[in-house]
Amino acid sequence: MDQYRVLIDSNDEKGLVFKVSNIFYQRDLNIISNNEFVDKVNNRFFMRSVVAGVADPEALRAELEAALPKDASIEVIAPRKKKIVLMVTKESHALGDILIRYEDGELDAEIVGVVSNYDLLQPLVEKFGIPFYTVSHVDLDRDAHEGKVLEKLAELGEFDYIVLAKYMRILTPRFVEAYESKIINIHHSFLPAFIGANPYKQAYERGVKIIGATAHFVNNDLDEGPIIAQDVIHVDHEYDWKQLQGLGRDVEKVVLSRALKLALEDRIFVNGNKTVIF
Amino acid sequence: MDQYRVLIDSNDEKGLVFKVSNIFYQRDLNIISNNEFVDKVNNRFFMRSVVAGVADPEALRAELEAALPKDASIEVIAPRKKKIVLMVTKESHALGDILIRYEDGELDAEIVGVVSNYDLLQPLVEKFGIPFYTVSHVDLDRDAHEGKVLEKLAELGEFDYIVLAKYMRILTPRFVEAYESKIINIHHSFLPAFIGANPYKQAYERGVKIIGATAHFVNNDLDEGPIIAQDVIHVDHEYDWKQLQGLGRDVEKVVLSRALKLALEDRIFVNGNKTVIF
Amino acid sequence: MDQYRVLIDSNDEKGLVFKVSNIFYQRDLNIISNNEFVDKVNNRFFMRSVVAGVADPEALRAELEAALPKDASIEVIAPRKKKIVLMVTKESHALGDILIRYEDGELDAEIVGVVSNYDLLQPLVEKFGIPFYTVSHVDLDRDAHEGKVLEKLAELGEFDYIVLAKYMRILTPRFVEAYESKIINIHHSFLPAFIGANPYKQAYERGVKIIGATAHFVNNDLDEGPIIAQDVIHVDHEYDWKQLQGLGRDVEKVVLSRALKLALEDRIFVNGNKTVIF
Amino acid sequence: MDQYRVLIDSNDEKGLVFKVSNIFYQRDLNIISNNEFVDKVNNRFFMRSVVAGVADPEALRAELEAALPKDASIEVIAPRKKKIVLMVTKESHALGDILIRYEDGELDAEIVGVVSNYDLLQPLVEKFGIPFYTVSHVDLDRDAHEGKVLEKLAELGEFDYIVLAKYMRILTPRFVEAYESKIINIHHSFLPAFIGANPYKQAYERGVKIIGATAHFVNNDLDEGPIIAQDVIHVDHEYDWKQLQGLGRDVEKVVLSRALKLALEDRIFVNGNKTVIF
Repeated sequence: MDQYRVLIDSNDEKGLVFKVSNIFYQRDLNIISNNEFVDKVNNRFFMRSVVAGVADPEALRAELEAALPKDASIEVIAPRKKKIVLMVTKESHALGDILIRYEDGELDAEIVGVVSNYDLLQPLVEKFGIPFYTVSHVDLDRDAHEGKVLEKLAELGEFDYIVLAKYMRILTPRFVEAYESKIINIHHSFLPAFIGANPYKQAYERGVKIIGATAHFVNNDLDEGPIIAQDVIHVDHEYDWKQLQGLGRDVEKVVLSRALKLALEDRIFVNGNKTVIF
Repeated sequence: MDQYRVLIDSNDEKGLVFKVSNIFYQRDLNIISNNEFVDKVNNRFFMRSVVAGVADPEALRAELEAALPKDASIEVIAPRKKKIVLMVTKESHALGDILIRYEDGELDAEIVGVVSNYDLLQPLVEKFGIPFYTVSHVDLDRDAHEGKVLEKLAELGEFDYIVLAKYMRILTPRFVEAYESKIINIHHSFLPAFIGANPYKQAYERGVKIIGATAHFVNNDLDEGPIIAQDVIHVDHEYDWKQLQGLGRDVEKVVLSRALKLALEDRIFVNGNKTVIF
Repeated sequence: MDQYRVLIDSNDEKGLVFKVSNIFYQRDLNIISNNEFVDKVNNRFFMRSVVAGVADPEALRAELEAALPKDASIEVIAPRKKKIVLMVTKESHALGDILIRYEDGELDAEIVGVVSNYDLLQPLVEKFGIPFYTVSHVDLDRDAHEGKVLEKLAELGEFDYIVLAKYMRILTPRFVEAYESKIINIHHSFLPAFIGANPYKQAYERGVKIIGATAHFVNNDLDEGPIIAQDVIHVDHEYDWKQLQGLGRDVEKVVLSRALKLALEDRIFVNGNKTVIF
Repeated sequence: MDQYRVLIDSNDEKGLVFKVSNIFYQRDLNIISNNEFVDKVNNRFFMRSVVAGVADPEALRAELEAALPKDASIEVIAPRKKKIVLMVTKESHALGDILIRYEDGELDAEIVGVVSNYDLLQPLVEKFGIPFYTVSHVDLDRDAHEGKVLEKLAELGEFDYIVLAKYMRILTPRFVEAYESKIINIHHSFLPAFIGANPYKQAYERGVKIIGATAHFVNNDLDEGPIIAQDVIHVDHEYDWKQLQGLGRDVEKVVLSRALKLALEDRIFVNGNKTVIF
């Protein structure tokens, strides 16, 4: 299958759709799907096309580059299994959801390895034939521990995304900057409600009637990056915070897997601290 | 504001986006928004563009017609208040929701009149200065009553949509064919569950845990036309069918008003017995 | 109909259900429905029973009082139309939703009057034969204006609830304390996200994928009281903040009306800064 | 922990709550939670109490039996790991979701074995140390195959529930009657919409805007038993039926696991063809 994904992120100006579709037409490409969005506040244009019939993707990219504004970001992506690294701590639900989908062939990805600060989930991960690396934080300060994690990640070679599947350690700016728009986190609340630690306890104490989860890129502070997906579930006074946590796990895992699939399908554009999702 | 909506519904073939955007570009139009969809199963192309800078809409339409496939349906629509007729029976919630939005200026529409087989809602409608017409069905067979309703509608002159805001009479094919894709109905269930009479009673007896409502075009059988919008609400064993009906009203009115707004904004394409909504 | 609602809020101790149901049994009452909840963290017991066959409600209350812990709050309530006052500013959607339900007889309430700091909604309210009082804030400081509002409320006589149906002025502690657990507000966000002014703009800037609304008692700070009801709606990058606001109105009005009905049916217990809802 | 679950299902008559709570009180039991419901249409009373301090559960049961109507069903259940058998065909998502929860200790259950008409999922199941039994239907008519499945189930000894985690074979009345209210199925639609085969294809063709899933007991026809849990997800015209199926899997697995947990916690009463869930 010779389908390519063309991603364009550019300053907006007149004629962009014409210029792109003209190139597609001259090259006799078949447009499978086409999505555009203009952010008028920031004068920004986003386009994702799936096209068939591409003979020379690099030539296509170069031609688009010549036709579009200088600052435009242009990618012509051949569908391929993206490489991902998972990071976890002790909870298995988000990890497990990804493993089951992986085993089933549902994810267009190769899991390069799972990194954790505990060895608790090693048996689960190894059932699926995936390497598990424990990088303990015991007796290390944050920087030292993170340095070891970064070393381990470096050893794993090239990859496309780090998925924080309930990794409960705060990342420093050094880490985050090294993987900008490459780290997908699941936060166990409906952000921006209940930023920080123990959101289910906070939710219980506030007496909310709905709890939620948020998958987002980690681009700066842990709970502040561009939101990819969110979902919620109704609750009532009968739930104590442990039960909220239990219920919330079902939302967390589904939201994280949904965000991961959007990333694997190249459907997410980062637009400042927001996302455009096609 | 010189923004026009361009709606294209055509057999799919290569180059359609190019041809349309080329015309926009040559005419120096500014694309405010652009949505396309290709139904691959039926090889059908749908496009809705909002463009600014149109000097001569009829010339634009003619140029698009010349460039696109012969069978293509092409509309260039200047935003204007669409004319609508409401039909009701005895329940006020869906009607009232539209009236409040109307009074608020939220609907880009003019309500030409409200037609009912009862006079119960006349006082409510007249509060808003809208003509109310009672066409009683008493002592009339279905055809005779419907004939009188059609006469009344004819008297009301040209209009764009008939909104069945809980009109509880079945329409005959004669009526439906006269207003193809012009009649928007709210069905008080999550179609296709509980087709027919008394869906809340059916839902109660089936013991469902969710109830819903469906807004759709009436193109043939009452509950069978293209679906525009649906929504649901969770319920439990404590609700008897009257309570389900009460809860369901909140879903009905919101779903109907949402569908009506989509229609007023020219966002709905009918695609066989389905809809494409931008 | 001789059905009474028995509401009990007490320290928890063994035998409460027995003691209450014993009294019901000895008096030959028919239990229509029965809900209990124990808040174990705070050792608090809540019970709402609907009973038929009550001959002497005051005697029933006295007998329950004698049997239950000293601190228990016990109410035996005959269903009656509760009196409510609405307060609004300029937006009509939440007000209109209540008016339509009121006109329909759906609310077990009498609307004593509508108080606003603008006269914009006077024509709408008066359509329904309900008194409208404008208490302008122009040229008054917060305290002086609020004093005038309190005077107006005092003139309206006894009532059960004040419903803030998009009343956009901050209430001072003086006001709030005067009507503890009697003021129901609709906040136009999924609290505690986006406390304060212009939550839709905040939501737009944060790039959330879901927006919501929260109905709550106002017991202290405007957005901090016990939550009664919440709901949400999914959104995406295509919505600017004005469109989010438009969509959000549908959630706001449904959530506020839901909360109001719960209050009118005596289904809400305030439990610290939370609610127990049967 | 000496907590017991007391389940009562009886004809309704005056004094039931009193009689039960009197017995709890005389025995000095601590009521942890208490739920009651009266189905007035069928004059049926349901009660689930969790009580602490039970010295002799059989004596408690006998005393309740003596006090309550003759026809009453009374159970006093010590929390224990319930035994369950899973049945699957080829899809792994619902099975996998249960396995991950099981591995995590989240389910109060022991999985006795997994029975399938294919061996495709054997490797996945055996990763978790759970016996997998293939009972192929090849070259067997329905009755002969089902007979072999029943034999296999008999070999597995006593168990509490059979969970059909996407078992795609129709069960005959013989099978269903042998395990009345013991078989939990996940149907891949929002029942009663799209009964029968290939509901996602039906949903695609009907053009629905929401798809769902339903967990229910199998008591007679495959898709007709008492509904335990349902949930839905919004979709649009862009999804072909394969994509609807993919999305639907997330709803299916969460709904099935939710129903299973309700069953394991003895929260479900079957009330005719409906359920009462506390």
